[in-house]
Amino acid sequence: MGEREEVKILGFWASPFVHRVQWALNLKGTHFDYAEEDLWGEKSALLLSTNPVHKQVPVLIHNAKPVVDSLLILEYIDDTWTHRHQILPTDPYDRAMARFWAKFGDEKLLGPAFRAMCSSSEKKVMGANSVAESLEFLEGVLKGKKFFGVENIGYLDIALGWLAYMLEVWEEVGSMKIMDANKFPCLANWMKSFVDHPLIKDSLPPRDKMVVYFEERCKILASLFN
Amino acid sequence: MGEREEVKILGFWASPFVHRVQWALNLKGTHFDYAEEDLWGEKSALLLSTNPVHKQVPVLIHNAKPVVDSLLILEYIDDTWTHRHQILPTDPYDRAMARFWAKFGDEKLLGPAFRAMCSSSEKKVMGANSVAESLEFLEGVLKGKKFFGVENIGYLDIALGWLAYMLEVWEEVGSMKIMDANKFPCLANWMKSFVDHPLIKDSLPPRDKMVVYFEERCKILASLFN
Repeated sequence: MGEREEVKILGFWASPFVHRVQWALNLKGTHFDYAEEDLWGEKSALLLSTNPVHKQVPVLIHNAKPVVDSLLILEYIDDTWTHRHQILPTDPYDRAMARFWAKFGDEKLLGPAFRAMCSSSEKKVMGANSVAESLEFLEGVLKGKKFFGVENIGYLDIALGWLAYMLEVWEEVGSMKIMDANKFPCLANWMKSFVDHPLIKDSLPPRDKMVVYFEERCKILASLFN
Repeated sequence: MGEREEVKILGFWASPFVHRVQWALNLKGTHFDYAEEDLWGEKSALLLSTNPVHKQVPVLIHNAKPVVDSLLILEYIDDTWTHRHQILPTDPYDRAMARFWAKFGDEKLLGPAFRAMCSSSEKKVMGANSVAESLEFLEGVLKGKKFFGVENIGYLDIALGWLAYMLEVWEEVGSMKIMDANKFPCLANWMKSFVDHPLIKDSLPPRDKMVVYFEERCKILASLFN
């Protein structure tokens, strides 16, 4: 790719979906500009024009063309910057499996864990239990491997990366316990390896700031989820 | 690929998700076996073992390896049988757009249209209106093209194919009107071209049988959606 290409992320500091895109570009060594969106205030005209359907972050703008949806942006990044650090596996079956578990992670872990954090009593317990059950599947997928991408961080590591630094915050904010290192030893090791990865560790949002932010979100959303 | 490869679909005759996989294999000229699942009776041991997470069809079994989730199966088919009829576009940006609108179709059209069919009064009207609004986006995407894949049927045509033969059945069963050829002329032409395509027209389920089946489903699901 030429040196003068424009690569810009419209993001929000606490969004696990936005972090995926930042990590993927870091792995590719692709320089990008970043614009923080005021998601709960006034969204920028650029966000509204580049993502008119969902009006959400992340948006990746590459030479004036917008791509949205974090998992689809990962595919686009891998299809576009092919020179370095392949993100998806090469084998068609491995690719299918990585995509399957990434979608599973969003549907059975990320969404339910967020809702459990903001729920109370019975709903919280049921939600937390269902997330723990889903973690069992991932423990099986990871067995014998350091990363889901085997030797290094790949598509599925990036998709599930939020588990490694955000789940613990959600557990604290939601006064719930989901992750158990004795029950999920492979996942526990993976979480450590992931947050210690040189391209990840300096990109994570401050823990204290996340706690304050998600406590605030939960107050606002509690009525919706209970 | 070798001649002795095993390609099998676990399916259900009225599932638009299953049809996608059948069409894609037909486009590739890949011979496959088909096993009908009794989704509302007893699911086969093969289904439960090949899709333990969701226990749903379609499952594509290729040389004993199962792939699930219809849109991911399309990617797998395109990654595997590369010799003929590329399903996804080549250009990274076109690929991202095709994936985006396919997901949009499932989230903003297929799910909502099905629920509107089974809902009553206010909910039906609101649901049908939201589907019509979403069709406006697709009309814009299609403008000036015969197929979403431009010259021939591609990934997005396959993903949205259900619109061309099933939406009208759902409109009849649900006593609602969503599609309007005057408002969406490009989509109306596309629907005709799609169901007339030589590889599609002989694979569609009988209309009368669909009406009876979806009427029955609606009776069962009405209490859930109202």
